[in-house]
Amino acid sequence: MPERTIAIYPGTFDPVTNGHLDIIARAAAHLDVVVAVSQNPAKTPLFTLEERIAHVKEATSSMDRVEVDSFDGLLVDYSIRKGAKLIVKGLRAVSDFEYEMQMAQMNVRLGGVETLFMVASPSYSFLSSSLVKEVARLGGDVEGLVPAEVGRRMKERFRDA
Amino acid sequence: MPERTIAIYPGTFDPVTNGHLDIIARAAAHLDVVVAVSQNPAKTPLFTLEERIAHVKEATSSMDRVEVDSFDGLLVDYSIRKGAKLIVKGLRAVSDFEYEMQMAQMNVRLGGVETLFMVASPSYSFLSSSLVKEVARLGGDVEGLVPAEVGRRMKERFRDA
Amino acid sequence: MPERTIAIYPGTFDPVTNGHLDIIARAAAHLDVVVAVSQNPAKTPLFTLEERIAHVKEATSSMDRVEVDSFDGLLVDYSIRKGAKLIVKGLRAVSDFEYEMQMAQMNVRLGGVETLFMVASPSYSFLSSSLVKEVARLGGDVEGLVPAEVGRRMKERFRDA
Amino acid sequence: MPERTIAIYPGTFDPVTNGHLDIIARAAAHLDVVVAVSQNPAKTPLFTLEERIAHVKEATSSMDRVEVDSFDGLLVDYSIRKGAKLIVKGLRAVSDFEYEMQMAQMNVRLGGVETLFMVASPSYSFLSSSLVKEVARLGGDVEGLVPAEVGRRMKERFRDA
Amino acid sequence: MPERTIAIYPGTFDPVTNGHLDIIARAAAHLDVVVAVSQNPAKTPLFTLEERIAHVKEATSSMDRVEVDSFDGLLVDYSIRKGAKLIVKGLRAVSDFEYEMQMAQMNVRLGGVETLFMVASPSYSFLSSSLVKEVARLGGDVEGLVPAEVGRRMKERFRDA
Amino acid sequence: MPERTIAIYPGTFDPVTNGHLDIIARAAAHLDVVVAVSQNPAKTPLFTLEERIAHVKEATSSMDRVEVDSFDGLLVDYSIRKGAKLIVKGLRAVSDFEYEMQMAQMNVRLGGVETLFMVASPSYSFLSSSLVKEVARLGGDVEGLVPAEVGRRMKERFRDA
Repeated sequence: MPERTIAIYPGTFDPVTNGHLDIIARAAAHLDVVVAVSQNPAKTPLFTLEERIAHVKEATSSMDRVEVDSFDGLLVDYSIRKGAKLIVKGLRAVSDFEYEMQMAQMNVRLGGVETLFMVASPSYSFLSSSLVKEVARLGGDVEGLVPAEVGRRMKERFRDA
Repeated sequence: MPERTIAIYPGTFDPVTNGHLDIIARAAAHLDVVVAVSQNPAKTPLFTLEERIAHVKEATSSMDRVEVDSFDGLLVDYSIRKGAKLIVKGLRAVSDFEYEMQMAQMNVRLGGVETLFMVASPSYSFLSSSLVKEVARLGGDVEGLVPAEVGRRMKERFRDA
Repeated sequence: MPERTIAIYPGTFDPVTNGHLDIIARAAAHLDVVVAVSQNPAKTPLFTLEERIAHVKEATSSMDRVEVDSFDGLLVDYSIRKGAKLIVKGLRAVSDFEYEMQMAQMNVRLGGVETLFMVASPSYSFLSSSLVKEVARLGGDVEGLVPAEVGRRMKERFRDA
Repeated sequence: MPERTIAIYPGTFDPVTNGHLDIIARAAAHLDVVVAVSQNPAKTPLFTLEERIAHVKEATSSMDRVEVDSFDGLLVDYSIRKGAKLIVKGLRAVSDFEYEMQMAQMNVRLGGVETLFMVASPSYSFLSSSLVKEVARLGGDVEGLVPAEVGRRMKERFRDA
Repeated sequence: MPERTIAIYPGTFDPVTNGHLDIIARAAAHLDVVVAVSQNPAKTPLFTLEERIAHVKEATSSMDRVEVDSFDGLLVDYSIRKGAKLIVKGLRAVSDFEYEMQMAQMNVRLGGVETLFMVASPSYSFLSSSLVKEVARLGGDVEGLVPAEVGRRMKERFRDA
Repeated sequence: MPERTIAIYPGTFDPVTNGHLDIIARAAAHLDVVVAVSQNPAKTPLFTLEERIAHVKEATSSMDRVEVDSFDGLLVDYSIRKGAKLIVKGLRAVSDFEYEMQMAQMNVRLGGVETLFMVASPSYSFLSSSLVKEVARLGGDVEGLVPAEVGRRMKERFRDA
C-alpha cells in the first residue's frame, strides 16, 4: 500500500472561492489534502462553521484525496493530531507572503510542521474571500469567483440582511 | 513498495550554502529530492559544474532521499524526464518571491509542473551564494555560511586569483 | 465640440488631503474628473458625507474640469451611470499598490472599467487621511497637509471631542 | 473635430508580447496611443529596431487609434515633440512598481509629463520579454505569450544561433 | 562629562518580546535609550500600562544606558520634552518598512525628530507582540519569544479569561 | 571632551547626489560621519576615485562633523580600523530595504558592526546615482538633483564621450 504524504490546507473559507479550490485541486494532485476549516475566525463570519464546511464539501466532492474537517486552537496541534507534518497555503501577493512567512516560521518552531506554498493561478490572483463578500454585499456579480451554489447563498444572505 | 513523491530542487549552487542545505534537509523529510545543478549559469561561475556537483554531493552525503544531478535546458523538460511533477524552492525575501512567482506560473503553463515554496530558516534569510562569494573575495570569514570544505576551496580560489 | 474623456476619482476623503488635491489637479490637466465621495466608509468617519463633499468642493473650486459628487454601492455601477469608463487613483506605496491592483482587476471584470494610476508627488508620498487624523487628534500641526479650512475644522472637531 | 488625448507607450519590445498588446488595446479604448520603440536598449537586442517596429505594427494593425514610432534620447523630450503630455505603462509586480514610480517622478520633474499606469491583465502578469526570450532560447513553447509570427521568428533566430 | 546621544524607542509592548529586547540592547551599545511605553494603544491591551512598564523594566534591568518611561500624545512632542532628537525603531519586514517610513517622514516634518532604523536579528524577524499573544491564547509555547516572566503572566491571563 | 559616536556612510558616489548630501547632513546632526568612498565599484565608474572624493569633499565642506575618506575591501574591516561600530545608510524604497537588510545582518555577523537606516527625504526618494547619470547622458537637466559643480562635470564628461 502506498505511503501517502498528508498536508493540511487551513482557512476560514468564509466563503470558499474558486481560488481556494484551484489550490486544493493542484495540491491534491501530489498530496493527500485535509481542508481544515477554522472554527473561530477573528471576525464574525458571514456563514456558520457548518455552512462553511458544507460549501467546501460540496465544491470538493468530485476530488480524490481531499478530506474536509474543522479545527480549533493552534494549527500545529491540529496538524500533529491528524498525523500531518505539512501545511499547504496559496500565495497571491507580497503582503500575503510576509504574513505567511511569519506564520510558517512560527509553525516550524512550535511543532516542526513545515508549510509548502503554492502560487495562485493568475486568473485568481486578485481574488479573496473578503473582496468577494464586499462585491456581493454591494450587489455585484460573483459568478466565476465562487462555486455557483455559494454565489446563490451569498445573494440570499445579503438580500435578507 | 511505497509511492514516493519526487521533487526537483534546482539551482546554480555556486557555491552551495548552508541555506540551500537547510531547505534540502527539510524538503527531504517529506519528499524524495533531486538536487539539480544547472549546467549553464548566466554568469561565469566561480566553480565548474563538476566542482559544484561534488560540493553538493559531499554536503548531502548523509541525507536519505536526496539525489544530486545536473541539468541543461528548460527545467520543466528536465523535471518531466526525471518523472517529477514538483519543484521545490526556498524563499527568503519579497524580491525572491516575485521572480519565483513568475517562474512558477510559467512552469505550470509550460509543463504542468508545480512549484512548492519553503520559507528559509530565519538564520539563513540573509544568505545568498553571491553575498557569500563577495564576502570571501574580500577576505571575510564565511564559516557557518557554507560547508567547511566549500569555505576552504573558496579561500584557495580567491587567493589564486 | 471636443470629445472628453471622463474619469472617476473615488474616495472617502475623511478628510481630503493635499495629496488628494495634487492627484485631482494633475488628472484634470488631461481628463474630466468626477471626484466621487463614498457615502459609506468602512469606519465611522470624522466628517459627515455633506461635510466631506463641501470640503472637496471648496478645495477644488478653482479647478476646471472637476466635478464633485457622491456615490453608494459598487463603484463600477456608479461609473457606468456617470458614463465613465475610467477610474483614476493615486499610488504612494507598495502596500497601496497590491490592494489597488486587486481592485482594478476586479473592476475590469465586473464592468469593463479601467483604472489609471498616477504616482503621488514625492512631497505627499507619506500622507494619508488616517495619518492626518491621528496627528490632529494628538494636537499636532497639519498645516500644509490639508487645506487650511479643513485643518481648522479638524481642530474644532477634536477639541469638542 | 474631437480633442484627442495622446499618450506614449514606450518600450524596447524585444519582442512585443501579448502582455504589451493587452495594455495597448486597453489604453487605445480611451486614448490615442503612440507605441514608441526605443532605439537604444541597454543590452544587445534579439531583434533590430526595424524588426521590433515591424512586429509591433503587424500586431497592432487592426487597432484604431494606435500609431507605431521609434525614439532615441530622453523620453520626455520625445513626448513633448509628439505633443503628448502623457505616458502609459503597464504594471505587473511590486518590483516593476518601484522602478516605474522613480521614472514617473523624474519625468514629471524633467518635463511635466505624467505617467498613467494600467494593471496587467492577470493572465499576463507573469509575462516579460526577457522571460519569453529565455524560454524560446531553451526550446520551450511560447504560443499564447507572443503573436504567432513573433514566435516563429524567435524560433528561427535561436535555431540559427 | 561625555555628551550623550539620547534616542527614544517607542512602542506598546503588549507584551515586550525578545525581539524588542534585542533591538534595545543593540541600540544601547551606541546610544542612551529611553524605552517609551505608549499609554493609549489603538486596541484594548492584554496588559495595563503599569504591567507593560514593569515587564520592560524587569527585562532591561541589567542593561546600562536604558531608561523606561511612558508617554501619551504625539511622539515628537514627547521626544522634544525628553531632549531627544532621535527615535530608534526595529524593522522586520517590507510591510513594517512602508508604515515606518511614513511615520518617520511625518516626525521629521512635525518636529525635526529623526528616526534611526535597526534591522531585527534574523532569529526574531518572524516575531511580533500580536503573534505571541495569538500563540499564547491558543495554548502554544512562547518560551524563547518573550522573557520567562512575561510568558508566565500571559499564561495566567489567558487561563483566567 | 565629549564622547563622540562615529558612523561610516559608505557608497560609490558616482556621482554624489543631493539625496546623499541630505542623509549626510541629517546624520551629522547627531553623529560624527565618515563618508567612505568605495574604491572598487562593481561597474566602471563615470568618475575616478579621486574625482568622486573631491566631489564629496566640496559638497560637504561647510558641514561640521563630516570627514571624507575612501576604502577598499570589506566594509566591516574598514569600520573597525576607523574605530567605528556604526554604519549609516539611506533607504528609499522596498527594493533598497531588502538588499540593505541582508547586508546589515551580514555586517553584524562579520564584525558586530550595526547599521542605522535613515529614510530619504520625500523630495529625494526618486533619486539615484544611476538615474542621474542616465538622465545626464541623454542630455536631460540634472539641476537640483546633484551639486551644481557635479552637474557641470557630468555634462562635460558626456559631451566628450
